[in-house]
Amino acid sequence: MVILGIDPGTAITGFGLIAKEGNHLKQITFGVIRTSPDIKMPLRLRKIHQELRLVIEEYRPDVMAVEQLFFNKNVRTALAVGQARGVVLMTGAEAGLEIIEYTPLQVKTAVVGYGRAEKVQVQEMVRMLLCLREIPKPDDAADALAIAICHAHSCKRLSIIREQ
Amino acid sequence: MVILGIDPGTAITGFGLIAKEGNHLKQITFGVIRTSPDIKMPLRLRKIHQELRLVIEEYRPDVMAVEQLFFNKNVRTALAVGQARGVVLMTGAEAGLEIIEYTPLQVKTAVVGYGRAEKVQVQEMVRMLLCLREIPKPDDAADALAIAICHAHSCKRLSIIREQ
Repeated sequence: MVILGIDPGTAITGFGLIAKEGNHLKQITFGVIRTSPDIKMPLRLRKIHQELRLVIEEYRPDVMAVEQLFFNKNVRTALAVGQARGVVLMTGAEAGLEIIEYTPLQVKTAVVGYGRAEKVQVQEMVRMLLCLREIPKPDDAADALAIAICHAHSCKRLSIIREQ
Repeated sequence: MVILGIDPGTAITGFGLIAKEGNHLKQITFGVIRTSPDIKMPLRLRKIHQELRLVIEEYRPDVMAVEQLFFNKNVRTALAVGQARGVVLMTGAEAGLEIIEYTPLQVKTAVVGYGRAEKVQVQEMVRMLLCLREIPKPDDAADALAIAICHAHSCKRLSIIREQ
């Protein structure tokens, strides 16, 4: 199973692709879609749509895992991230992907085993679980990989529950 | 010039198309895109994308005018509306439309001449300006027409300024 994790944002949308083969996780690729604050919002959103579609076409993931927003951020931030997030969810649905959303708490718990883990602990676990030499950069790509790992681990737990 | 006004929302996205011929405004069509709360958010956003694209393909507007969000709503509302809004802006950009955003204050001032006008006053002016027998229903469609009228009036004022 190929899992595409996404950390949506207007300026930077992180993406991370992993393959889950049995209990083994393997990194396929990761990166970010950047848009310039100098261009208008509709064109920034179009760029996110176009580049994400290219990633989906190239790597053909089975599922897209997307981070749910914090609700303690301010309204202006929620609107901006919401716009990018809407485009990301729509792009996944357009490609016929199954889409699952995870809260930051779920991601931390699934990756580190502790919901209040620091960002750097999550990143270090991402590095270890995917057998990478270094922590993936930038942060948005590492976050996207963490979301993909969260989905891989959640599936595992679901399949254990089903087997019982 | 054909102007497409949009009032974005996850459950109901209103649209209104008007033609501006000299100083005359004419209603072309209006309506809403509804999505059910029973289906998942990515599929709701995909429906908004698909139906809005059909409207653009059929009526070929020159410009899209979109209402900017209130910032006094709560974070959860801003996120939900932001997601629909992101899809709307991206769909317009994908179709190569010029996209202009107006605040509710700008819309009220342009349509009624008074920034604190009541909703029903705005709707009544929409009815009069477009020579309609009744106020367009539902509210979201009337709001979308008001945004389109706002753009038509703003253009007029811009052209007067340019002529001076």
